[in-house]
Amino acid sequence: MVEEKEISKAVVGRLPRYYRYLGELTDAGVERISSGELSEKMHVTASQIRQDLNNFGGFGQQGYGYNVKYLRTEIGKILGLNQSHNMIIIGAGNLGQALAKYASFEKNGFLLKGLFDVDPKLDGMMVRGIPIQMMDKLEEYLQENEIEIAALTIPKSKALEVCDMLVECGIKAIWNFAHTDLHLPEDVIVESVHLSDSLMKLSYNITSYKEEHGES
Amino acid sequence: MVEEKEISKAVVGRLPRYYRYLGELTDAGVERISSGELSEKMHVTASQIRQDLNNFGGFGQQGYGYNVKYLRTEIGKILGLNQSHNMIIIGAGNLGQALAKYASFEKNGFLLKGLFDVDPKLDGMMVRGIPIQMMDKLEEYLQENEIEIAALTIPKSKALEVCDMLVECGIKAIWNFAHTDLHLPEDVIVESVHLSDSLMKLSYNITSYKEEHGES
Repeated sequence: MVEEKEISKAVVGRLPRYYRYLGELTDAGVERISSGELSEKMHVTASQIRQDLNNFGGFGQQGYGYNVKYLRTEIGKILGLNQSHNMIIIGAGNLGQALAKYASFEKNGFLLKGLFDVDPKLDGMMVRGIPIQMMDKLEEYLQENEIEIAALTIPKSKALEVCDMLVECGIKAIWNFAHTDLHLPEDVIVESVHLSDSLMKLSYNITSYKEEHGES
Repeated sequence: MVEEKEISKAVVGRLPRYYRYLGELTDAGVERISSGELSEKMHVTASQIRQDLNNFGGFGQQGYGYNVKYLRTEIGKILGLNQSHNMIIIGAGNLGQALAKYASFEKNGFLLKGLFDVDPKLDGMMVRGIPIQMMDKLEEYLQENEIEIAALTIPKSKALEVCDMLVECGIKAIWNFAHTDLHLPEDVIVESVHLSDSLMKLSYNITSYKEEHGES
């Protein structure tokens, strides 16, 4: 799959959405769909869909559309969902617990193995059958367990320090919710969810809508 | 500000990040910064920074760099952060409560006014001084209170139904965490945070990194 290296970020960013829609179609019993029908459902152009999927060699047969289940499986493979990924969550506050409870992550191969926090009140509390452990156990835990992803739901002020430790302990991917960018060694994958940034985009769109419509 | 209408989504998507970095610089007492220095901090090219900011008329003086406080204020205005936005959260589970507790939203003008849920166990529970109310009170609440943004932290299965009601009650913007896209009337702004999509992007990057480095 050498060609994958050249896939643009924009295309990669759209793949999970294809996967989601194809899942909904599978659940609804749809076996085959044309790019035109899929385009209507997803509110993107059919040519965008064809172009995106052509990055991975197509999957469709001219005039026959896409086999929903096959396409979903293939996109799942591209996304790495055919393998399981061991994950821990660092920061077991509301957000950490919310993530821990998302059953759909498990379904897609993201297996929650541990939860860590500094708050002694949370020590030993069970979340989906997993006990919250104290942060001073983390280093030892990572030596004894093979963990690939660490979700970071801790304040910005602690994030860099914790990250250094995670990287030192061999964590290869960080799902970052701390309100800061992490500039880590090249071999550590970072995916950030900046909730404030998202809310600001919403606010931008409200504001510019009002300006366009003379409501400001 | 007619020219704002033509600002690309990509530029808008980057503005909150500028705002965040300029906030950190302000906190650190930095008064002036060149695009080169800012570029190094943000890990983007200086020419990208100049181009992005030129969309809004520049803000910099050749050879003098940017006035940090001024630039931050101006970007804040573009993002609509100089106005306050009344917000409610629908779904007071872990994620809803996590959002309710983010003090930084308040600081940027997003004022949490109400929290709603269907779980009778949560009825009347206080989160940051705001009582959780039951969903059957929502319609009346929206008639009596001027609310601009509804954050949706409820399951996908309920999202469309709740959205219809919100739109009917005049909500103008939805911050969507439900695992589905919302296709709403054109005058309703939607900003979605799809956590699963983000996790899949992480998984894609892990997988393609392994493939590139022969670890798969």
